[in-house]
Amino acid sequence: MVAEAPWRAIARRKQAERQSKIPSAWLLQTPPSPSTLDVRAVPRTSGILNSSELSITEDHDATSLADAIRSRTFTAEAIITAFCKRAAIAQQVCNCLTEIFFDQAIERAKFLDKEYERTGKTLGPLHGVPVSLKDSFDVSGYDSSIGIASLTGKPATKNALLVDILLEQGAVVYCKTNIPQTLMALDSDNNVFGRVLNPRNKLATAGGSSGGEGALVAMRGSVLGVGTDVGGSIRIPAMCGGLYGIKPSAQRIPYVGQQNGTRKGASKIGLPASAGPIAVSLRDCELFLNTVSNAKPWERDPSVAYGLWSEQGSIQRKPLLGVIREDGVITPLPPISKVLDETVQGLRKSGLEVVEIDAPAFKKCQSLANKFFGIDGGNHMFDLLEATQEPLTAWLSTRLRRGKPISLDRLVEIHAQKVELETEMLKIWKDPKTGRQIDAFICPVAPHPVPPIDRWNGVSYTSSFVLLDYPAGTLPIRDFKEEDLKGELSDSKPLGSWDKINRELWDERTIDRKVYLDTRLSVQVAAPKLQERRLYQAMSLIESTLRTGLVGRPKL
Amino acid sequence: MVAEAPWRAIARRKQAERQSKIPSAWLLQTPPSPSTLDVRAVPRTSGILNSSELSITEDHDATSLADAIRSRTFTAEAIITAFCKRAAIAQQVCNCLTEIFFDQAIERAKFLDKEYERTGKTLGPLHGVPVSLKDSFDVSGYDSSIGIASLTGKPATKNALLVDILLEQGAVVYCKTNIPQTLMALDSDNNVFGRVLNPRNKLATAGGSSGGEGALVAMRGSVLGVGTDVGGSIRIPAMCGGLYGIKPSAQRIPYVGQQNGTRKGASKIGLPASAGPIAVSLRDCELFLNTVSNAKPWERDPSVAYGLWSEQGSIQRKPLLGVIREDGVITPLPPISKVLDETVQGLRKSGLEVVEIDAPAFKKCQSLANKFFGIDGGNHMFDLLEATQEPLTAWLSTRLRRGKPISLDRLVEIHAQKVELETEMLKIWKDPKTGRQIDAFICPVAPHPVPPIDRWNGVSYTSSFVLLDYPAGTLPIRDFKEEDLKGELSDSKPLGSWDKINRELWDERTIDRKVYLDTRLSVQVAAPKLQERRLYQAMSLIESTLRTGLVGRPKL
Repeated sequence: MVAEAPWRAIARRKQAERQSKIPSAWLLQTPPSPSTLDVRAVPRTSGILNSSELSITEDHDATSLADAIRSRTFTAEAIITAFCKRAAIAQQVCNCLTEIFFDQAIERAKFLDKEYERTGKTLGPLHGVPVSLKDSFDVSGYDSSIGIASLTGKPATKNALLVDILLEQGAVVYCKTNIPQTLMALDSDNNVFGRVLNPRNKLATAGGSSGGEGALVAMRGSVLGVGTDVGGSIRIPAMCGGLYGIKPSAQRIPYVGQQNGTRKGASKIGLPASAGPIAVSLRDCELFLNTVSNAKPWERDPSVAYGLWSEQGSIQRKPLLGVIREDGVITPLPPISKVLDETVQGLRKSGLEVVEIDAPAFKKCQSLANKFFGIDGGNHMFDLLEATQEPLTAWLSTRLRRGKPISLDRLVEIHAQKVELETEMLKIWKDPKTGRQIDAFICPVAPHPVPPIDRWNGVSYTSSFVLLDYPAGTLPIRDFKEEDLKGELSDSKPLGSWDKINRELWDERTIDRKVYLDTRLSVQVAAPKLQERRLYQAMSLIESTLRTGLVGRPKL
Repeated sequence: MVAEAPWRAIARRKQAERQSKIPSAWLLQTPPSPSTLDVRAVPRTSGILNSSELSITEDHDATSLADAIRSRTFTAEAIITAFCKRAAIAQQVCNCLTEIFFDQAIERAKFLDKEYERTGKTLGPLHGVPVSLKDSFDVSGYDSSIGIASLTGKPATKNALLVDILLEQGAVVYCKTNIPQTLMALDSDNNVFGRVLNPRNKLATAGGSSGGEGALVAMRGSVLGVGTDVGGSIRIPAMCGGLYGIKPSAQRIPYVGQQNGTRKGASKIGLPASAGPIAVSLRDCELFLNTVSNAKPWERDPSVAYGLWSEQGSIQRKPLLGVIREDGVITPLPPISKVLDETVQGLRKSGLEVVEIDAPAFKKCQSLANKFFGIDGGNHMFDLLEATQEPLTAWLSTRLRRGKPISLDRLVEIHAQKVELETEMLKIWKDPKTGRQIDAFICPVAPHPVPPIDRWNGVSYTSSFVLLDYPAGTLPIRDFKEEDLKGELSDSKPLGSWDKINRELWDERTIDRKVYLDTRLSVQVAAPKLQERRLYQAMSLIESTLRTGLVGRPKL
């Protein structure tokens, strides 16, 4: 008899432990039938949340929750209790959590309420606001296993710096969220915790790598989650959940104190990842970025650049936006081109200038980003997996294998290519016709709508802005409608293998397009490096212009 | 008969070409006698500059020259002519120049005068201000050979970005300045152009690697020079010249468009160098940094971080300074400790708070910096030298040899060590007693006064702030006096080999201390990463407090 591989028992133990952290009163009496694809209504019908708790979790964003605590409309305890319940339900229907610390969170909320009662002052702008965290962030006393069996049973001995900062500003952390094995897949599935499902449509992917975060926030088991992004891992799950998500520049938000399956120091010679928010409103993204930057994280993490929120750029008095319709690697499918065009037309109709950007260098970004991702040959990750005989997931098994680390000469060479490409891309920030500065540009998040499980194709539209280190965000525009199912593929020759696979996501012989119903269409907005406030202002400008039909200055 | 090595003919040709660029009317009729050690008076006695030209070059800094042009007191032409003459003399007595373009500079000054006449507007804050450049900066039409024979005869086809920015802001560039072979020595000597001499005392070193710049500015053949620094190469020659010099953080001032004998991309995996000013006044350093940052260099160089001058930090309303008296690698010699203590006492007497900083991690910085300097084994540099059979200079020949590039694993390891050390060092920015923020700290530039030629010892006090990427500047305090010759070495055991050699610079058996007369004593000031304005304000505060005895807010 062949002995069972060690990772299996570990996975059973971790899953049982997770389940044990959900109070029995919060267990669903009647789980939704397997044929229910959209599970977002489950909390409302479960009977677990009372009407006040339903309102807290459904009618608010983080900003209004913080306001409600300040105005004594709700206590922090009432708020976190509601979100713990809802997160518990989200876990039962979407498998979006990894570590659960509801008890501790409720204790903390009580403490915050007492402090506010006693001093009349809040700890900070996040006083009492529930914040969920991607599994990679260290929280003292809990594993940061990122779904790798050999990393379980090693609880962190201190918090990640970002966690400490959020706590100092009054946040209440209550759970960590599920991710893909290796963090380098676009579906959040791993051997220890299993797969995250998309609550809007269980047949559609929840995205990754911050996929548990996206699903939890889409369930409103959280209104403000923290993810990380090195190829699209905040923006993709935000799109899958129909949410807002911002990937800052790498030097902006403290990243230290995370487990990401690489060796310490590795990010310094490759492409560093960023931490950022996934949220139910754009202003909550601002709340997060503003609060963290004004806590002066550069005084505690040497990898963070100096710069208060007010020192992170701004859009011009007379704003000018750009649009990049295609990246030259994968042609967007009809609904993606359509929503992008609608957005541009909507803005133009309101009198906002949007110029077409020609970015011939864009198409070189993805392949160069891939060279960076392959620097160390994945050896550290494979060592971690093999320590408990853990296999790659099905999706990764055909895409990842151990390689040799590249040579120092080759590393210098790809860095030189990167500088050259970055320099070439700087040109896109001026309108070639007038020489005017472009404040931000709009482009797709992905060349396809939210696809079925394990069929996310190509990250060229997201990984490029990791290579270039541009802050970039996902801005949901509208629901996918019946009429969006129309639209035909170009009959031109595919641009390449990625483009070819992409067409399979629209070709009715290879997909049932109906999977796209219930998903949401989004656009991506990007601004120049280290100008997060400029990005936020541009996103806010776009959203308010589309909503009101008037070009307004965003709240600055 | 052995054929002559190719580099020799190249050196003769370059030196003859350089000499030919000096108009015969500007050649010294009677060069100073070899026994004249301080040659700073030569321009005054040469008869080459008229009284107005002597006043222009001796009684002004860049700021007042710019003012004088705006107020029409002087023309740009008169100013650049005076500086070209003085630079020509400086070259004849100090060997500080490499490339000379006086004619072109005078033509440009005439153009600037006409433009100002015609439009009533200046091009920018540097309108008509002469700026000299370290040889490494590309200037279209001229070599950037950095004293390496194989790099001569390859004139640049475009300007370095920084040169373009300076020109756009109105500067007049007129010459490039001499450097050490490999740029990694502390005396500026090379086979092509020869050795730079210190105009204050020809027996003392002029420092390096921006040694020509330091000597030229000390001769007032320039008031504002641009150097680069990856181990002390701005701050050391500034100290040797008794001048002001600021090394910004690496991402602050555009560095692109320079020849520095390394492969493109290499700086991205190692320690990047910074460009910065060497000047006759502190406010000129501000003029330079302010002007360049406000020209938004990040829009043209992707390696520059976003941040206007006003977004580069500031000191607190009630400032708090720190002092680090020793780095734990080399104990400062008596006059260095003395001037540091005088500075601290002077500030305290005026009511400015200066706290003692305990920085146990400081001593680890130099050895880690050295690991970074050795990443590529110097192979590219050796290839360049061997192409014309050029030998190392005497000083370098015992210190440099071809090595093997380190492995990728090892590279990741030293980057992890760097992050750890950076994190540890962040602690020094809080006063441990009160928790208050320290705005900037004072420490030595070097553990010894300006030493004799080829005897600079150890760069631990300067290279550490390259490793940590702190902006840091040299602030001249006062002339070295007879009474400073006193003071005895500690009889404790040396801290290590660097410390042992350092003592030889004070032990009367191994040095004639009189060499230190005529030099100047300086201190170094450092601020946290990417806070150049905070550094400038702190330096300005220190200078004005010492001068006036009153703690004033610097001009902000």
